[in-house]
Order: sequence, then C-alpha cells, then structure tokens
Amino acid sequence: MATVRVSLGNRGYDIAIDEPGGIGPFVAARVPSRRAYMIADYNVAARAERWQDELNEAGITSRLTTIPPGEASKSLAQLGILYERLAQAHVDRQTAIIAVGGGVVGDLAGFAAATHNRGIPLLIAPTTLLAMVDSSVGGKVGINLPEGKNLVGAFHQPAGVWIATDSLATLPDREYRSGLAEVVKYGVGLDGEFFDWLQAHSEDVTAKSPAALARVIARCCTLKARVVEQDEYETTGVRAVLNLGHTFAHAFETVAGYGTWTHGEAVAAGQVCAGRLAARRGLLPEADLQKVIHLLKAWNLPVAPPEPANVDAWLDAMKRDKKSSGGRIRLVLPTRIGSAGLFDDVSEAEIRGVLDGRAQ
Amino acid sequence: MATVRVSLGNRGYDIAIDEPGGIGPFVAARVPSRRAYMIADYNVAARAERWQDELNEAGITSRLTTIPPGEASKSLAQLGILYERLAQAHVDRQTAIIAVGGGVVGDLAGFAAATHNRGIPLLIAPTTLLAMVDSSVGGKVGINLPEGKNLVGAFHQPAGVWIATDSLATLPDREYRSGLAEVVKYGVGLDGEFFDWLQAHSEDVTAKSPAALARVIARCCTLKARVVEQDEYETTGVRAVLNLGHTFAHAFETVAGYGTWTHGEAVAAGQVCAGRLAARRGLLPEADLQKVIHLLKAWNLPVAPPEPANVDAWLDAMKRDKKSSGGRIRLVLPTRIGSAGLFDDVSEAEIRGVLDGRAQ
Repeated sequence: MATVRVSLGNRGYDIAIDEPGGIGPFVAARVPSRRAYMIADYNVAARAERWQDELNEAGITSRLTTIPPGEASKSLAQLGILYERLAQAHVDRQTAIIAVGGGVVGDLAGFAAATHNRGIPLLIAPTTLLAMVDSSVGGKVGINLPEGKNLVGAFHQPAGVWIATDSLATLPDREYRSGLAEVVKYGVGLDGEFFDWLQAHSEDVTAKSPAALARVIARCCTLKARVVEQDEYETTGVRAVLNLGHTFAHAFETVAGYGTWTHGEAVAAGQVCAGRLAARRGLLPEADLQKVIHLLKAWNLPVAPPEPANVDAWLDAMKRDKKSSGGRIRLVLPTRIGSAGLFDDVSEAEIRGVLDGRAQ
Repeated sequence: MATVRVSLGNRGYDIAIDEPGGIGPFVAARVPSRRAYMIADYNVAARAERWQDELNEAGITSRLTTIPPGEASKSLAQLGILYERLAQAHVDRQTAIIAVGGGVVGDLAGFAAATHNRGIPLLIAPTTLLAMVDSSVGGKVGINLPEGKNLVGAFHQPAGVWIATDSLATLPDREYRSGLAEVVKYGVGLDGEFFDWLQAHSEDVTAKSPAALARVIARCCTLKARVVEQDEYETTGVRAVLNLGHTFAHAFETVAGYGTWTHGEAVAAGQVCAGRLAARRGLLPEADLQKVIHLLKAWNLPVAPPEPANVDAWLDAMKRDKKSSGGRIRLVLPTRIGSAGLFDDVSEAEIRGVLDGRAQ
C-alpha cells in the first residue's frame, strides 16, 4: 500500500494504492455531502456494486449508472445521455461523481463532472492498468470527435484516486499489456533507472506479481504527479513529455477507427516511431532504441505502424493534434532513455520516413 | 470611452467600451498567433463581416461562422455542430474564438472555447445590452439541457471583451429592455446610488442617450468585475448576489420553454418575487420593493410571474438550480436597495406564497 500526493494547492489530491481502509472512508473524507453518483463501465458493474455497499457502510448514499465499454463511448452522444441522467437524478454541486473503470469511463465521466453545473467533485477508481498509471492522474478529461481523439475536453483535477490493484487480476491480457505501453513511456521519457528496473523485472510484471504491480503503479503515479505539478495546464512544454508517442498513436487510432488497436498498442508503436525519428536525427543512441523495442516486444506490443500504411491520412491527423500550431507538427522525442523533449522543427519528410514501413 | 479591468491574475482582462482604436488592434494585442475564428449570431453577421475586415487590416486572419439566433441555440446539438466546424477548420490552441452577438452566442461559443482542445482563447464582442452588462463578463459559459438552463458549462475567462455601444441602436426594443432588467439587478443587489441614478435618468436610458448608455455599461461591468474578482468560481457566496432574481427566472424560463419570455423579462419578474419574499420576511422595506417595481414598470418589464401560474413545476425547476443543495432551494434576497445576501432557510411555503399570483 502507498499513497501518492499530487500537490496542486487547493486542487491537490491523494492517489491511494491498495489502502486497507477501503473505499468508503476514502470517499467519506473527501465528499462532505456524503452523496455520490457512480458511473461505471458495465464490464466492472459487479465491482462497482460492491463498492456501493462499502460506500453505504461509510454513510454515503449513491446511485450507479453504467455505460457501454469501449472507446466509442467517449462520444458527444454518450455525454448527452450522461448529462440527462445527471440532471434527472438532480445531481447538485456537492454530489461527487465516482468514475469506475478504465480510461474511457474516467475521461467521459470526468468531462461530465467538469461541466455539469459548471463543475462538480470527481473521484476516480480506475480498474485498468492504463487508467491507474496514466489517465486517472493529472486532471485531463474529455471526449473524442470523429475528427480526432480528445479534441473536446477540460482540465478537472479529481478530489481523489482510489486504486485497488486486485482489479487487474481479471483484466483481459490485451488490456493489461496496453497499460504496459504507458509504463514503458514513463521509463523512456522520464526515468532511466525505472526503465532498467522494468527490463530486469519484465517477467514479474508479465506475471502480475503483486509486489511488482504496486511498485510499477506507485512509480508511474509519482512520475506523472511531479510533471503535472510543474505544468498543470500543459502550457510550458514540461507536461508534453507525457505525450511521448501519442501524436503518432492518436493518428493511428483516428485513421483506423477506434477499436482496431487499443490505445496502448498505438502508443507502443508511436513510441517506436518517435524513437526511430530521434535516432535518425542522432538524438537517441540506436542501442537505446533497440532496448525500447525489445521491452515492448517482451510484452507483445506492436513496434511498427499498423498495416497497411496510410501515411497521408496519418500525417493529416497529426496536423490536427492539440500540440500542433498553425499546421506545424510538434513532436515529443526521446533524447536518451530517461529523457525527452518537445521539438517543433521536425520536417514532414522525417515523419514520413518513420511512418512508411518500407523505409524501415 | 472607458476600459474596465477584471483583475484575476494571469486570467485578468480588459473590457473596452467604445475604444476609438477599433477591434483590430484590440484583438491583435491579445492574440499573438494572429488567427481567429469568429462565431456570430446571424442577426449580426453583417457587423461581424465588417469587423473581419478590421481584423484583416490589423493582420489577423479569420474565418466566420454563424449560428441561428435564440436561446434554442444553446443546445448540445448546436454545440456538436460547432465542435465539428472547429475541428474541420483545424482550429488549434493558439487560435482565438471571437463571439459576436448576445448572451446566447457568448455562452455557446464560450463553452466551445472552454472545451475545444481543452481550452482555447476567447474574445467576446457583445452586441446586446444584456451581454454587455452581464454575460460577457466573468467567465461563465455554458449550454442548456431540456431539464434546465445552464446545467452544463464551465468557467472560462475571456482574453478581452470588446463593446461597441452603437450596436444597441439597431437592437430590437424588447431585447434592449430585457438588458435593463439586469441593469436594475446591479442597482438593487450591489449599488444603491446607482439605483437612484437609474431612477433619476430612466428616460435618458429609455432613449438610449449615448452618455447614459456609456455610464450604465461601465458601471455594471465594474460592479460585476469587483464581484467576480472576489469569487471567480462561485464558491464563497459573494458571486451568488449576481443571481438575484435568477433562480425564479430560470424556473419561469425552463417551464415555459425558452422563447416565451426573454431572459431579462424572466429576471425582472424574478427580482420582484425575490423582493416580495424579502419584504414579507421583514428583510426589505416595502417602500424599496415598490421602488424596484416602479423602475421595472417604467421600462415595460413584467413584475409578476407568468400566467397561468404553474407553481409545482416552477418549484421543481428551482430545486434543480445549481445553487441548490440536497434538494434545498437557496435564494438571493435583497436586504435593502444596494445589498443582497444568499439565504438557505427559505421555506417552500414562502416561495409558493410569492409564486402564486392569487396571493399577491
């Protein structure tokens, strides 16, 4: 068990990892009104119902609504359904939304929390590895548009994040591996020692050893918290480092349609593209690139863009990325394992070079 | 001409009233990218096009899109259309949205600006009195749901507000009078001297005397700025004072359907309800209530709830108000002309007493 603090002044909060006290007291300490509205992916509805019982024991009244799983739920249509349910349930400014599930539920329910009544409290109880190590921390919430991923959203820090790592026991293998792509990102972009540790313990991680899981999750949350503390609203470039591989990844996802690859799979391939581009520029040693590829492969993650290549469409999607400015693509590139920076001088030819499978 | 500063640290901004320099330099000084996306009510499309020319002269490239006028445009459906246009126009984080029109456009385009790419710069160029004195200042943006007004929204301070009072020359009389209901609110809730001035100059105001207009708009913007500076996110109760009459008003609007009464008409009747309730409690001298009624009548504004009475539905809508908590209605009540407070001990019977026309 561990608690990671995200220090953001009056928007600061705790990430509790396997706290023995249970979710009831955790929420009770953070929701003075003792009223909650739980929004769960229906894959984890049974767990959400158990948590409702625990909340009830802690004196918290709650309702539970479920949404369909999958990236398609991060839509304006699903958001409209949620708004209607919140209004009809008379959810007021003191009622907390508790998002139970993966990144999709956290992002969608989080955006509803950011905008219902101009903002109500949010607690997140992630049940996927990806949500535990990444999307639940830092306040980014939002939905997708047909034109691109996360094009609509807000910054809305949660009042707390509740992580029960035993949720991962029943997580489908593909979802688990997808979360590992984000774990690799933290090592490559921010912490070389952590990357080395991952390399040395990749089999423990594959086997979901409880000690390895707790260490991985606490380390990733801490790394993300430190970045978010320096650049809450992604204005200074510090936070952009967390997007290593993501500009490529969003393009793969947007063009293929959500659901072809998982987000993590796209991020794995995107990291390799970013790494390869960096290596060709002489920024990243080729040996480091190979280490990254090796670790991703050990976890059965893709290390090349999807087939068949659709370079023009990917480039077009990359130009619509939120980091872009005036049509110019800005990319996060690794400079060694453990460090990355934001570059705005990357040419289209360089990007084409790593997107076009034949050139590799 | 005057400039009112809203001091909110790095979210502070200027409200320029009849600045001789023109909109081009005003926007150029606030949008380093020199790119703008103008969203206008199509009633004022011709003015927006003229402003586009002025922006162009100042080196700012812009696109213009129009939306249908009227409260019905503050919908999730219209928002979705706007999101699609922004995405297809590749509007990025450095491009400013310029909202041209009344409160509807400001609220809708403002919410799009708050959430597109997790927030992009917003400038507001209000063309109605209501938008000039109220909705353009303070950062509240949002849309309506069938269940209630402004139930979805955000706080997103603009980068600047550009007021050209000559827009009011062509504003329909009913729209102009509706804005005056909010003007009265500032006098009653915050500034007794201003109320007295309005009483003494009500005919100049009716006649849209340029000197009277400039004074009214600058005073209201200043009063609102001072309140917003103290309570940007409406958490301390200070800002709630600006909602004098609005809990009643939103209920009248929600139940009647938007478009039956203007927002200002509903606010006028709502203020009288709040004043009458306060008078019955002994909070507000009856003579003050009569002064308020007299001034509203001088401007042809309603001073009683709409007919036929629909008390149960109004009460239900009031319970869904964003200020409500746990089903308890919280109301802003005037304590004398120039002062008001937030009360959470108002009984349903008291509210019914002022809603039920027969009892008056």
